[in-house]
Amino acid sequence: MKAKTSSASLAITTDIILPSDTNALHGLFGGELLARVDRICCIAAQRHANAICVTVSVNNVSFGKVIPLGSMMTIEAKVSRSFSSSMEVIADVYLENRDSGEKTKVNEAIYTFVAVDNNGKPIPVPEIIPETDLEKQRYQNALQRRQLSLVVAGKLKPKDATELKSLFE
Amino acid sequence: MKAKTSSASLAITTDIILPSDTNALHGLFGGELLARVDRICCIAAQRHANAICVTVSVNNVSFGKVIPLGSMMTIEAKVSRSFSSSMEVIADVYLENRDSGEKTKVNEAIYTFVAVDNNGKPIPVPEIIPETDLEKQRYQNALQRRQLSLVVAGKLKPKDATELKSLFE
Amino acid sequence: MKAKTSSASLAITTDIILPSDTNALHGLFGGELLARVDRICCIAAQRHANAICVTVSVNNVSFGKVIPLGSMMTIEAKVSRSFSSSMEVIADVYLENRDSGEKTKVNEAIYTFVAVDNNGKPIPVPEIIPETDLEKQRYQNALQRRQLSLVVAGKLKPKDATELKSLFE
Amino acid sequence: MKAKTSSASLAITTDIILPSDTNALHGLFGGELLARVDRICCIAAQRHANAICVTVSVNNVSFGKVIPLGSMMTIEAKVSRSFSSSMEVIADVYLENRDSGEKTKVNEAIYTFVAVDNNGKPIPVPEIIPETDLEKQRYQNALQRRQLSLVVAGKLKPKDATELKSLFE
Amino acid sequence: MKAKTSSASLAITTDIILPSDTNALHGLFGGELLARVDRICCIAAQRHANAICVTVSVNNVSFGKVIPLGSMMTIEAKVSRSFSSSMEVIADVYLENRDSGEKTKVNEAIYTFVAVDNNGKPIPVPEIIPETDLEKQRYQNALQRRQLSLVVAGKLKPKDATELKSLFE
Amino acid sequence: MKAKTSSASLAITTDIILPSDTNALHGLFGGELLARVDRICCIAAQRHANAICVTVSVNNVSFGKVIPLGSMMTIEAKVSRSFSSSMEVIADVYLENRDSGEKTKVNEAIYTFVAVDNNGKPIPVPEIIPETDLEKQRYQNALQRRQLSLVVAGKLKPKDATELKSLFE
Repeated sequence: MKAKTSSASLAITTDIILPSDTNALHGLFGGELLARVDRICCIAAQRHANAICVTVSVNNVSFGKVIPLGSMMTIEAKVSRSFSSSMEVIADVYLENRDSGEKTKVNEAIYTFVAVDNNGKPIPVPEIIPETDLEKQRYQNALQRRQLSLVVAGKLKPKDATELKSLFE
Repeated sequence: MKAKTSSASLAITTDIILPSDTNALHGLFGGELLARVDRICCIAAQRHANAICVTVSVNNVSFGKVIPLGSMMTIEAKVSRSFSSSMEVIADVYLENRDSGEKTKVNEAIYTFVAVDNNGKPIPVPEIIPETDLEKQRYQNALQRRQLSLVVAGKLKPKDATELKSLFE
Repeated sequence: MKAKTSSASLAITTDIILPSDTNALHGLFGGELLARVDRICCIAAQRHANAICVTVSVNNVSFGKVIPLGSMMTIEAKVSRSFSSSMEVIADVYLENRDSGEKTKVNEAIYTFVAVDNNGKPIPVPEIIPETDLEKQRYQNALQRRQLSLVVAGKLKPKDATELKSLFE
Repeated sequence: MKAKTSSASLAITTDIILPSDTNALHGLFGGELLARVDRICCIAAQRHANAICVTVSVNNVSFGKVIPLGSMMTIEAKVSRSFSSSMEVIADVYLENRDSGEKTKVNEAIYTFVAVDNNGKPIPVPEIIPETDLEKQRYQNALQRRQLSLVVAGKLKPKDATELKSLFE
Repeated sequence: MKAKTSSASLAITTDIILPSDTNALHGLFGGELLARVDRICCIAAQRHANAICVTVSVNNVSFGKVIPLGSMMTIEAKVSRSFSSSMEVIADVYLENRDSGEKTKVNEAIYTFVAVDNNGKPIPVPEIIPETDLEKQRYQNALQRRQLSLVVAGKLKPKDATELKSLFE
Repeated sequence: MKAKTSSASLAITTDIILPSDTNALHGLFGGELLARVDRICCIAAQRHANAICVTVSVNNVSFGKVIPLGSMMTIEAKVSRSFSSSMEVIADVYLENRDSGEKTKVNEAIYTFVAVDNNGKPIPVPEIIPETDLEKQRYQNALQRRQLSLVVAGKLKPKDATELKSLFE
């Protein structure tokens, strides 16, 4: 199984925020953003795995800024690291100013997917080759985040989480 | 501002999974679950704060089990702890067997909300009084999770994250 | 088949009214309310019958008050009485004041469901044991409402509708 | 205010049942039918009243037959009778066989609407002139149904419901 | 296979524009109009063909006027001409003034459908008999439009498009 | 007003086809595709115009192939040519094989948009500089298509449609 670059999994979606996507304050409804990020991250994972991928967990999403009605919003998702059959996917959310064309990053989200066969059984996926500085940094931190999840889930003892432990020393 | 119990914020929603809620494998689409959990957690937060609440972050959601078409699904959300104007809300997701009536927990999700006034400015919220053992444990761990978020976001130095640090010693 | 209490079938759903749920006057669209009440009543019926339930008729729904955008709305449904394989389900709709936490009843709806097997054939359901005063009164009136439906549908002669007849004497 | 015929208010809608409209048994979801009937009845009422109309109550809907995925369904709604500012609207639901073109009536629904001005205050509507035999019969029975609603709502004493009372003598 | 009139295929749908149907300018979202026209044209084609029909192409849709939130909109579709297994369907879109009852035509759309069997293989459809002046004119022009599509698709040489050619002489 | 390249307007969206997007044959519902293409073409137009853009017409969409449930579909839209305040936008629709990663073009669509100010009045847009061979060919043909639309709409006499006329000589 040949390793693939992070950028080979890049999935992009751009859309206009319509009234049916908004909350009572006329910004994009948080749940709607979570759903869209889930779909585009799933596509990035499937491009990396060449297999059906299902969401395992949402590890972190921060809502930095209101996304107003009528905005053009772009979500870009890439696999940051893989672990046997699971993949960490990071999505960056951008808002685009219609008049100036300027793009601003407003949110970031981290999801985990697992590749499965037609019976839902996990199957192995290729390793990730990070290329840019940001890809390398995310690749590196993915290991800490994974240990964190395992600690939170009670599947790893804090003292065995070597990557994490070093942070606190 | 008088402290309130965790259970006073309890918000419940039960629904049947229809075809329009499913993914291509005929289970509940992950993004749809995230959107529903967001809505019911927001209600728990608003019941605690008696104010408009907006999603700040999704801290952890794990998808333990497929939720099939036609299922009866219940989500129960409660504020686990508050920090000046923000609240950690934990949602438990249950699947109900139609024939036996038995309920099984299938997912757990942790979101953070902030209470705001009509101009979107954060306002203080009451403290939480945990009562049951589970509420007390979640109240306790909320502090560690909060330090974790701050460390991950680069807003707190690991060495100042006293609650977390103790885990690794 | 053992009789069950009315409260054992209680199904609850709480939600926030989003722009996609509203009509041109920015209140909850009547059809959307009917659809949500149908879903939660179906769940109450399935909890009582431990079987698939399908809507047979909507007997009465009154729209007492506009439910504005951004409201928190709770629907509570319980089986009020069963007749061999059919069940009358009554839903109460409440609006919750975000600032005071006060709940006001705004609507009431009466639906009838029938329990079926996998081939869609009606199957028997347990009898209802009403406990509270309201449950007892609804249990009592359900018989009149049933005779009314049968009279309206031309399946019962007015003079044989003994429960109804007594009302007019 | 000049009386208008019942047929002048006729509103028609035909649609194909898509997967997003179905329940877990692959027939039209009952709540979705209720929502569609509400919309087309509202149009019939607005055509009669030449004013904004809002749903007051659903008086009776019976679900006679499953409406399968892929069906062509037509709903025809007409005002059957008006009472100062309220109108009873009856909708007939037809299923159309794609291969033979034959139409079969599968459901019938009775809704009540009220005409309002821009502030939501009830305003008078024209009287109805029934023309066909069916229109005349529905016009006649509308009075009984109205008395029934008032009796059920506790706004009319059974002994004063003269139209109803006569049925039981 | 017996020819059928154009009017025998007439399909009508009327609806109220709700917030969930609008764009950020509070008029009907263009894509939503295209979707609704597609559904009602499909029904007209199926009524003519008595068979499953699938969209082959959208030949022309012009958006003449904004359709505001709260409007009553009617779409009327009829098959204008058939060509072995394909049919040209023309839809007229009307806006209805609630206060005066006056209807104004706001858009026109031309779609092409093909009739298929259960395996998706094209099957023959009856010829169209145009009756009114408008039907005759649309029937006549359909041939030019068809040649145009074939020329645009590179499937017909301009010099062989006899109907079109005559226009430019 | 400085001319811009066609590729500067490129807008991309990728999505997974869910059950709620399908027709009764379990392929992407044609109307849903038209709606999505409309949204992404609008974004391409807005990127070129740096202004609000509204759909003027759909000039041609051909449905070449069924897009099955579960597919990954990508739509890429670019402005092909501008005419004072209007723009022709061409969208290419691709299907992506999950297992091989191979992309196949399945549909092509041509829409026209106009740039407007906040009062809905048309405003001028930059000219297009085509770069690739395909962009140049589409730029060239756009003029013929525009004359065609004007002829079809009766706004240009065939004998004055010089670009078109030359095709038939």
